[in-house]
Formats: sequence, structure tokens, C-alpha cells
Amino acid sequence: MAPVAVVIIIAVLEYVAFGWLVGRARHRYGVKAPATTGHEVFERYFRVHQNTLETLIVFIPAISLFAIYVNPNWAAWIGLLYVVGRILYLRAYVADPAKRSAGFTLSALPILVLLVGALLGAARAMIESNRVG
Amino acid sequence: MAPVAVVIIIAVLEYVAFGWLVGRARHRYGVKAPATTGHEVFERYFRVHQNTLETLIVFIPAISLFAIYVNPNWAAWIGLLYVVGRILYLRAYVADPAKRSAGFTLSALPILVLLVGALLGAARAMIESNRVG
Amino acid sequence: MAPVAVVIIIAVLEYVAFGWLVGRARHRYGVKAPATTGHEVFERYFRVHQNTLETLIVFIPAISLFAIYVNPNWAAWIGLLYVVGRILYLRAYVADPAKRSAGFTLSALPILVLLVGALLGAARAMIESNRVG
Repeated sequence: MAPVAVVIIIAVLEYVAFGWLVGRARHRYGVKAPATTGHEVFERYFRVHQNTLETLIVFIPAISLFAIYVNPNWAAWIGLLYVVGRILYLRAYVADPAKRSAGFTLSALPILVLLVGALLGAARAMIESNRVG
Repeated sequence: MAPVAVVIIIAVLEYVAFGWLVGRARHRYGVKAPATTGHEVFERYFRVHQNTLETLIVFIPAISLFAIYVNPNWAAWIGLLYVVGRILYLRAYVADPAKRSAGFTLSALPILVLLVGALLGAARAMIESNRVG
Repeated sequence: MAPVAVVIIIAVLEYVAFGWLVGRARHRYGVKAPATTGHEVFERYFRVHQNTLETLIVFIPAISLFAIYVNPNWAAWIGLLYVVGRILYLRAYVADPAKRSAGFTLSALPILVLLVGALLGAARAMIESNRVG
């Protein structure tokens, strides 16, 4: 399970880095806390950070349960695709929010694979343990 | 633990579905990214999605630790109540934000039970391991 | 691992309490759902709650993986520092958003220690298991 742990930590560090970019944009474009609007480019970084949080709450349980109920090595490699997809999403969104969909898909697809795989694996484990019991 | 894994994945899939409803409302009511305001109905879907994230960050550790320190089968059943409560919350909030409290309570109560149960179970395990040591 | 579970639950309960403060501020300053702006003090509470969510998504995996791959007792004590730092952050932010940095640092530093420790611990475990295999 150690490779999965490493990938989870990298994904979380990526999110921390995105948060740092929000702070830099807040300073650069003069958006004072608690405001979260006021400059278009700041809002793009802010939304990428927020959207990444929205994916992490799905990604972390999905990769963990896929690793337990399906395969930890596959989990780690699929998880890395998510991390790379997020970087493309950030670059596309900041350049032009209308073109964010490719990066979004590339980070959403690995999550969907992990999620569906984990669901099938856990459901099978549940059925098998009922048959034994 | 497999039933708990299945319930966690269902709760997370529900959240993904709520996110899809936000995207549909964004398109339908013409709210362009990165804006998150501009149409009342879009904002309701947006807030339900955000509020569900706020409950998931509590629900996932709570159900996991309740399953470990109290009882995995009870954890799964109580977790299902949360999932159902969220659907009622969505329907009530979109119809009229002022009437959202019943659905909110129905999804907040199971979390509170899981959280308090997990706290008592983990605290007991901590005290007992100190006594042995 | 029971002390780590207790600290995770305390951190999550703290977040629930912050959410209750947001609800109280919403009522007190007349900010009706789904609006999240409209009164400066409400917005401060709202941002503290949101920012705490942004730290929890990092804190929970970090403390869990640090406990597994480094040391569960250290994990619990470092986690308590995070919980205390969040209270100082809340008080400073509500009093004056410009002075929020000290409390933020005090809650961000423990997370960083947990994260870097977990990364080193998990990476070492990964390398060692490759050597054996």
C-alpha cells in the first residue's frame, strides 16, 4: 500500500501548491480577504483550487478503497494520471475558463475508474462474505 | 468492512451526481465560469453541492472510525440514512431554501451519531490500551 | 492508533462547531441562503469555515499516513497543535482578517510536518519493499 500512500500525499501536496497560487494571485491582483471576487484572474485560480478540493474528497476514498478491494499497484498508477490531469486543468482554466474541459476530463476519468472499480470490488467482497457466513 | 466501503462509495457518487446537476444548472441558466452567482436557481444547486462537500469531510472519517471502533454493520445502515437525507435536502433547497432544514437535519443527525459513537469507541480503546500497557 | 482517531474526531468536531458559528452569523447579520456575501462579519466566519475545510482535506490523510508510516503517538500530539492553531486562526480572522497569518501558520505548520513525515515514511516503505521483492 506504500505506493498508494505516496500518490495520495503527492495529490494533496499539489492541492497545497494550488492554494499557494491563490494566495499569490490574491496579493498580485489586490483582492483583500474575506473577498473572493474582484479580479477575473484571481477568480480563476480560486475556482481551480476549489474545484480541486471537490475532486480530492472523491479521489482519496476512491483510490484507498480501489487499493484495498481491487489492486494497490493499479490504484497508484491511475492516481498519478489524476495528478497530471489536474496540472493541465489549472493551465487551461487560467488561460481561458472556456477551454478547461480537456484537463477536467483527464482528471475526472481516473477518479471515475477508481470509483467504479472500488464499488465493484467492495460489492463482490460483501457478497462473498455473506455467502461464507 | 465491505458494506461500509460500499456506502462510502455511494455517498461519494451522490456528491458527483450533485456536481453534475451544478454543471447542468450553469449551462441552463447561463452562468459562465468562473462566476458562481448570477441566477438564483443555479446558486441553490451550487450551495447544495458545496454543503454536501462540507458534510462529506465529516461523514467519511466518522463512518470509517465508527466502523473500526464500534460496529461496521451499524455504520453502514446509519450511513445510508445520511445518503437519503441528502436527497431530501437537495429537493427541499432547490424548491425553497427557507425549507431546507428538515433534509439538513435528516443528513446531519446520522453524522452526529457516527461522530459521537466513534469518539466514545476510540476513547475507550485508548484508555483500555493504556491500562494494559 | 486510537489516540490518532480521537484527534481526527476532535478536529472534525471543531469544524462542525465552526459551521454552527456560520449559521449563527447568517441569522444574526441577516444573510439569507443561498447568499454567502452581504455582511463583512458573516463573510469572515464563512471564510474561516471554508478555509478549515481546505486544511482538513490535507490534515486527515496526512495524520493518518504519518501514524501508519512514522509514529502514531507523535501524529496525535502534532495533530492537537493543528486543532489549537485553528482556534487562534478563527479568533484572529474574525477580529481582523489582516491579522490572520499567525493562527494560519500555527495550524499550517503541523500539517506540513505530518505531510513531509508521511511522504518520507511511505517512500522509505516503498523502497524497502521493492528491495525485498
